[in-house]
Amino acid sequence: MPMDNAIAAKAALDPQNFALANCLRALAIDAVEAAKSGHPGAPMGMADAAAVLFRKHLKFDAKNPGWPDRDRFVLSNGHASMLLYGLLHLTGYEDMTLDQIRNFRQWGAITAGHPEYGHAQGIEVTTGPLGQGIATAVGMALAEQRLAAEFGADLVDHHTYVFLGDGCLQEGIGQEAISLAGHLGLGKLIVLYDDNAITIDGPTSVSFSEDVPARLRACGWHVQSCDGHDGQALDAAIAAAKAETAKPSLIALKTVIGFGSPGKAGTYAVHGAPLGTAEAEATKAALGWTAAPFEIPAELGAEWRAIGVRGAADRAAWEARLAARPESERTEFLRRLSCDLPAGYEAALAKARATLFAQPKKAATRKASQMALEALTPALPEMIGGSADLTGSNLTRVPAVDSQYTREAPGRYIGYGVREFGMAAAMNGFALHGGFLPYGGTFLVFSDYCRNAIRLSALMGLGVVYVMTHDSIGLGEDGPTHQPIEHMASLRAIPGLTVFRPADVVETLEAWDIAIRNRHVPSLMALSRQDVPQLRLEAGAENLTAKGAYVIRQFGEGRDVTLIATGTEVALAVEAAEALHGEGMAVAVVSMPSWELFEAQSAEYRAIVMGDAPRIAVEAAGKFGWTRYVASEDDVIGMPGFGASAPAERLYQEFGITKEAIMARAKLLARG
Amino acid sequence: MPMDNAIAAKAALDPQNFALANCLRALAIDAVEAAKSGHPGAPMGMADAAAVLFRKHLKFDAKNPGWPDRDRFVLSNGHASMLLYGLLHLTGYEDMTLDQIRNFRQWGAITAGHPEYGHAQGIEVTTGPLGQGIATAVGMALAEQRLAAEFGADLVDHHTYVFLGDGCLQEGIGQEAISLAGHLGLGKLIVLYDDNAITIDGPTSVSFSEDVPARLRACGWHVQSCDGHDGQALDAAIAAAKAETAKPSLIALKTVIGFGSPGKAGTYAVHGAPLGTAEAEATKAALGWTAAPFEIPAELGAEWRAIGVRGAADRAAWEARLAARPESERTEFLRRLSCDLPAGYEAALAKARATLFAQPKKAATRKASQMALEALTPALPEMIGGSADLTGSNLTRVPAVDSQYTREAPGRYIGYGVREFGMAAAMNGFALHGGFLPYGGTFLVFSDYCRNAIRLSALMGLGVVYVMTHDSIGLGEDGPTHQPIEHMASLRAIPGLTVFRPADVVETLEAWDIAIRNRHVPSLMALSRQDVPQLRLEAGAENLTAKGAYVIRQFGEGRDVTLIATGTEVALAVEAAEALHGEGMAVAVVSMPSWELFEAQSAEYRAIVMGDAPRIAVEAAGKFGWTRYVASEDDVIGMPGFGASAPAERLYQEFGITKEAIMARAKLLARG
Repeated sequence: MPMDNAIAAKAALDPQNFALANCLRALAIDAVEAAKSGHPGAPMGMADAAAVLFRKHLKFDAKNPGWPDRDRFVLSNGHASMLLYGLLHLTGYEDMTLDQIRNFRQWGAITAGHPEYGHAQGIEVTTGPLGQGIATAVGMALAEQRLAAEFGADLVDHHTYVFLGDGCLQEGIGQEAISLAGHLGLGKLIVLYDDNAITIDGPTSVSFSEDVPARLRACGWHVQSCDGHDGQALDAAIAAAKAETAKPSLIALKTVIGFGSPGKAGTYAVHGAPLGTAEAEATKAALGWTAAPFEIPAELGAEWRAIGVRGAADRAAWEARLAARPESERTEFLRRLSCDLPAGYEAALAKARATLFAQPKKAATRKASQMALEALTPALPEMIGGSADLTGSNLTRVPAVDSQYTREAPGRYIGYGVREFGMAAAMNGFALHGGFLPYGGTFLVFSDYCRNAIRLSALMGLGVVYVMTHDSIGLGEDGPTHQPIEHMASLRAIPGLTVFRPADVVETLEAWDIAIRNRHVPSLMALSRQDVPQLRLEAGAENLTAKGAYVIRQFGEGRDVTLIATGTEVALAVEAAEALHGEGMAVAVVSMPSWELFEAQSAEYRAIVMGDAPRIAVEAAGKFGWTRYVASEDDVIGMPGFGASAPAERLYQEFGITKEAIMARAKLLARG
Repeated sequence: MPMDNAIAAKAALDPQNFALANCLRALAIDAVEAAKSGHPGAPMGMADAAAVLFRKHLKFDAKNPGWPDRDRFVLSNGHASMLLYGLLHLTGYEDMTLDQIRNFRQWGAITAGHPEYGHAQGIEVTTGPLGQGIATAVGMALAEQRLAAEFGADLVDHHTYVFLGDGCLQEGIGQEAISLAGHLGLGKLIVLYDDNAITIDGPTSVSFSEDVPARLRACGWHVQSCDGHDGQALDAAIAAAKAETAKPSLIALKTVIGFGSPGKAGTYAVHGAPLGTAEAEATKAALGWTAAPFEIPAELGAEWRAIGVRGAADRAAWEARLAARPESERTEFLRRLSCDLPAGYEAALAKARATLFAQPKKAATRKASQMALEALTPALPEMIGGSADLTGSNLTRVPAVDSQYTREAPGRYIGYGVREFGMAAAMNGFALHGGFLPYGGTFLVFSDYCRNAIRLSALMGLGVVYVMTHDSIGLGEDGPTHQPIEHMASLRAIPGLTVFRPADVVETLEAWDIAIRNRHVPSLMALSRQDVPQLRLEAGAENLTAKGAYVIRQFGEGRDVTLIATGTEVALAVEAAEALHGEGMAVAVVSMPSWELFEAQSAEYRAIVMGDAPRIAVEAAGKFGWTRYVASEDDVIGMPGFGASAPAERLYQEFGITKEAIMARAKLLARG
């Protein structure tokens, strides 16, 4: 079958690479046709670059996909998922069978519409929400650099490669990632940009006309341009990018979206819809592709499988180097990657607990968090901290996590800058890379800025800790733009995220302990600016926060009313309960640091804690969602709407989050 | 009192400007001292630039703050609020009294910690969440350009000035705004960048080392640098920025944060804390400032008041030009600004309603939204549309809103690019500017990306319409990253936002009608990808969606169970109800397109709709929050967690959102 002339000219530049790339194109075309939906354009345009990367550069071993020192490959333009599935299938990843490719985008298949972390080996990260792939890759590259500094370049020395499109560069988070990567000089981060001039709404010129190379140079990047269909040029460009070790690299690939399609190449028609039977056939003809659908010619298949084991010797050598290490180093390295707790952790925790009970403290829970970090981080070298430019407010910096991560020395504390979304995605990258338990701070209200990355932490099941301080109107004078109202509810609504709002120093330590143990669940701490008394005074080893909710005070026998409170309002509820008891009522106060953990308890336990007396909830936040535990929102002492600018005490008074308000409602509801 | 030498050198560059700027510095120092909290550093550093801008360039009339053709001044670094309050007070805005300044950050004062739109005249936008001020200003500048094209430059010809700091440039949304402004060549947008090299966590070099001028040039901006304390140089730079009409302008001001403070200038200590009594005194001494706290020397006060009325003649001339316009033009111009509905609107609406009842249609609600827009936008020239690069999916483009907004011609449809957050903030800018009812589309799941701008729409009370399509697992194959789960709950939790999830073409039209009438409330439409039958078949003028919820079907007499559903699940609930009735049960189906509107109804109405039979909720979303209307989350037929990639019908089956599941639960709950 004769090739189209223009295509033949490209093919002639590197015939072998072209032929291998055609396998990727054909699989993408066939899978999208079979699914009757999907995105063929980007895989067809990026196939040549993918072939070069996997053939010549990417360090991996398809038979040992978890090899810790493999290069990471991130498909930031996740809609191009068939490119990744094709690569994994062709190079011989065992779980990526032809059946899976045939079942692209179908129920139960590992070949979802966008790559889903955990579905298949070789999917390093869930992508699709644009801009987050590159931002997560920045975290991976930071992790690589830090881990290399800790364990040596003979064990840790790999690149992070990213494919991305215009969308990732238009999204603000893309710029946050670019700026941070340039600032920290991530020389092993190499980004291949699918500069195809096409976006969903038409040519990119409709909305995007900036000089991307100049922007990235301004941010400290090494930038090259390259014909994205010329295997030789691609090889040279990637080699040059690797040679530049002090700056992250961007290679802008001039590509044709839907490369090969006679009727649709270079148009947005090929971005997000199947080619259609006729055009699919015409495309294969134009590419000189004669194999049946889903069939790979034997020779090309063999070549691809050889690529898949190209790294086997490297991996074996690496295994040998690891084996040659002193046992203590080897064990620690493997412990870090396996997420096991270190030997010293339990002792550090026990000591911290004992100290709290020995010397009760009134403190803001953000301060309590800092105390917990001070106590635990010396035992946990995997913890790597940071803040989105609010260190002094979030109190995320502690002596063991104090060395600044700079381009010269990758320390344990990262100045993420005023880049909440970039920070959250980078933390996901740390967790995905392995070897780290990242935590990072901002104000709770700015969880809005990084919300989709928190969602991805949950969707991927990553042990990332969000330290979100200034968790209510208790923030005071900065006013309504800075006071979270709907945030507790909106975060509790995210599946798979554990949200904590601890009441005192003890609960805060307990919350940290849970977060540290749960390396496959993200945790979010909502912490106060203002001081709270220590309510938990009875020494004991049991982590009550792990139950999600428990009776923290009981006044009198039985219950006329139950007060459920979280965070700073637990102390307020205790005050109100005491006063109510003074007036003859029996009152239980339930501290509820985590709804999610409470829901995970047995029905019996939950029934005992909730009791059968009328219930009132107290939380200085919006009332939305509390009807899970109380009869109506009238039984919630909380915020009716946005906050205001004034000192915190005044705000509590004006918005009626007071002992008196709790008591009044309790008297109204109480039995008998 | 002798001035510090370095300060004296700056003062000598433009003594008059320096003296006027000192008034701003002194007020900021005093107010922050009095409040015992706040941010003195930026006002002190930017005072000279502010003085030049207000003295020489800003077109305004303090006695007529609402003059539509005034220049807009946006303080994107909102923590510098005292700079704005000082300017408003000194130039004679009547509501900004000295008492208000004295009560900075106190309960009831209009001088909140961050500028709050609506608190005082001259506060053009609520700022504080970084990056959004500049992004909102881009919307204002777009609005100015479009309104000028519609009504002529003799009525609309003003600039949009923005002050911002490093934080706004680090936030991703800042880049989205910069990129869009450069792309569309917003020549009347002039940004003054407080390049003070200090951020909360210390020197900006900790996290920010890019070449900002080069980045902005790459994005098509006109860039200058300037001594931020040299009044003459500032004047020249602003003049040059105005002279450049084809590109937005950035002036990078080399400034000293906390300028004047002998002990703290140039350090982050002065960013967000009072100077302290001694340092405040030393600062005033260094500045040569001898007046008592909160006192402005008479001569300087008079000079500032003169600045405040500098624009009065211009304004009068503008009034005359407006008065000279033909009455129809004048009336229409004023109508646009007053947000009144045009004469033709009711007829267009009535015709659209009639058409739906005459020819019932099965259609996706996103398609229904497009039909509503087709019918209504010809009558509403104030409606300006767009999408974050998902036009063909959001169906936001219609014949009357089809002309692309380009740098050559400001049309009615904006290609916002893959910039959801930038789009949302720009829509806020359109609404704030006046003359427009903006709407813009993206996928519902990506409400995450623009969430804080939605919050600001609500906090400011702006008539902005978010068109969020692909509102559930009904999105199908794109999988869990693209399927909203927690989004309905998390949006319903935002105070002041009206969230709609209409069930069919009629409810969708009704939702649009409500959104169009409510010009001081933001609306968010959650719209389906997949088709739904038309359920509302009885002709009539009453907008039932305005009630938030109503009985859409009643099967049998009385109620054994009530099914509450939203959006695409209303049809499913009707099917289940019909089948249950076939088995002898009496069932009411409640369609609930908007929780917020339902809550605004009388208790009587709500009780009637809810009934006293057991209730089941049906919504293809997370269950969080539904306990407001049903006894427990077990009574919600919804999503237990994240979605999956597969065709939509299969997902509904697998996740158990089916007629059978509704029936089974109903039978379990139903009374005797």
